[in-house]
Amino acid sequence: MEERILMAHGSGGKLSHELITRCFVGKLDNPWLSRMDDAAVINNTNHKLAFTTDSYVVTPLFFPGGDIGKLAVCGTVNDLAVSGAEPQYLSLALILEEGLPVADLERIIESIRQASLEANVSIITGDTKVVPHGKADGIFINTSGVGRILPDVNVSGANVKPGDVVIVSGSVGDHGMTIMAQREGLRFEGDIASDCAPLNGLVANMLAVCPQIHCMRDPTRGGVATTLNEIAAQSGVGMIINDDAVPVRPPVRALCEMLGLDPLYIANEGKLLAFAPAEFAGQLLYAMRAHKYGCDAAVIGVVTADNLGQVILRTKLGTSRMLAMLAGDILPRIC
Amino acid sequence: MEERILMAHGSGGKLSHELITRCFVGKLDNPWLSRMDDAAVINNTNHKLAFTTDSYVVTPLFFPGGDIGKLAVCGTVNDLAVSGAEPQYLSLALILEEGLPVADLERIIESIRQASLEANVSIITGDTKVVPHGKADGIFINTSGVGRILPDVNVSGANVKPGDVVIVSGSVGDHGMTIMAQREGLRFEGDIASDCAPLNGLVANMLAVCPQIHCMRDPTRGGVATTLNEIAAQSGVGMIINDDAVPVRPPVRALCEMLGLDPLYIANEGKLLAFAPAEFAGQLLYAMRAHKYGCDAAVIGVVTADNLGQVILRTKLGTSRMLAMLAGDILPRIC
Repeated sequence: MEERILMAHGSGGKLSHELITRCFVGKLDNPWLSRMDDAAVINNTNHKLAFTTDSYVVTPLFFPGGDIGKLAVCGTVNDLAVSGAEPQYLSLALILEEGLPVADLERIIESIRQASLEANVSIITGDTKVVPHGKADGIFINTSGVGRILPDVNVSGANVKPGDVVIVSGSVGDHGMTIMAQREGLRFEGDIASDCAPLNGLVANMLAVCPQIHCMRDPTRGGVATTLNEIAAQSGVGMIINDDAVPVRPPVRALCEMLGLDPLYIANEGKLLAFAPAEFAGQLLYAMRAHKYGCDAAVIGVVTADNLGQVILRTKLGTSRMLAMLAGDILPRIC
Repeated sequence: MEERILMAHGSGGKLSHELITRCFVGKLDNPWLSRMDDAAVINNTNHKLAFTTDSYVVTPLFFPGGDIGKLAVCGTVNDLAVSGAEPQYLSLALILEEGLPVADLERIIESIRQASLEANVSIITGDTKVVPHGKADGIFINTSGVGRILPDVNVSGANVKPGDVVIVSGSVGDHGMTIMAQREGLRFEGDIASDCAPLNGLVANMLAVCPQIHCMRDPTRGGVATTLNEIAAQSGVGMIINDDAVPVRPPVRALCEMLGLDPLYIANEGKLLAFAPAEFAGQLLYAMRAHKYGCDAAVIGVVTADNLGQVILRTKLGTSRMLAMLAGDILPRIC
């Protein structure tokens, strides 16, 4: 096999077949992929299904805590999970830049394999395109996902109610600051790592003790602040967030302070926000903290019936200020 | 609104929301998209489902007969249709290059809207990423699709049987030669155009008269020759194809001859191959020719129990030769 990706790997001809058979079907082995038909067949289901898509263009491709492959599985798994669905099937579409080392591709596919195993999802259909050197940036990945909506669960960005507590599943800002440190060559790499992780196990535990959760969402691009604003607008409610209560790991906080950034705007890839009636807060936190991806879960605020569509931040000094949606772009290509 | 795409359009913040609301949700209006949740919910279904994905990287973005948007809808609709499914739901994920004119994006979205209307599919979930100028090439699109498998239909590349007829739904090579003429500035543009079209209506007509079809496939990258070889290998059969019977439009044939290319290796985006027991050939052709996308349908060969895994071409001169799978890459980025 060639050491680098050639244009002919995307031709649909012989080299495409070799690449697909060796690198994808062989590694991500399952009965759907090995049929190599144009579409995979999913058996009858009596559940509602969730359907989602995301493209991944992160740079660098490899970073502490993960790589673009792990991200592509976890990101789509998490979009399904926070929609109240059990993630089941993923598609995998690759856009490869001519000249990409095949060893890099194999390392990424291995990450995809491991992340799919952990998340208990099967990659059942795929596509590979190759573009000339200089027309992409190494590799772009799209994963789309299908999962069955769990019975009696009804979560949506529009369902949040005044009186709900706002819970975050753990420390914020880890992914975005890891990418920034890596890209700028800041010597924090030993201390910080991406939180990239599949959250479907955590979500299953949460829904088991509290099917009344009104909304869950993973605060990726734009961070916690942007996600809270989206939901305040969708549900037509206000929110008060207690800055002190938001968990931030010390090295992430230090790096944010050094660069003048607010961790509330930094991307996460293994965290979720949940909104639920206050009476369930205790048992929800208990269930979350029992899971490895929720051990730092905390209540960070409440939903209010005033200041509709707005998010108010209570600072450590006791003052309050508006927490707006991210306006520009702090750090492009973090996912 | 800005005239060109900025990095901040992919930030997940304010400009992302403006772009999504104005260009996508407003134009591709449906109840799923306007909820703007992380995943779209598909209601209970008692059918098997087909699931497929494809990325589109064609250059140029606009060409006679279509553009990357129309291609992205038709390509995925066709993968579902030839799998025996009624296409229902698509996802739409865009990777935009910083600096892309917003007018180009709007024109592409309008094509997507029109093609979805014609194919009767809804785009129910989406994603937008932006990469810096020089890190992509205008726009790359991924569409994934979900459709319900029609009852009593069982088509697969592995189901073809000796004695089956091989049918093509119309003239071959139109899409690939159009892209080539356009890219190389050859003055054939007036005469040839891409065949890019959604084939689900044609497939529905075919299955209505002949649910016994063993296999359908759309011969895109690698053309008819590569697709026939794939299926011969998957089903463990041989094939004899009659070169004279393959419909090729005169300007496509002329351009192919000028460039020394064989139309059987050139990509199509609105054609399908079908394999069915010979006794159904007449009614199948009749039904196909009654549809605007099947009016030039023709039987081009038969499936044999010898020469397993091989495709033999009978030429006009009466000689026979092996028709191999595409080895290199005639023309990159045709879809």
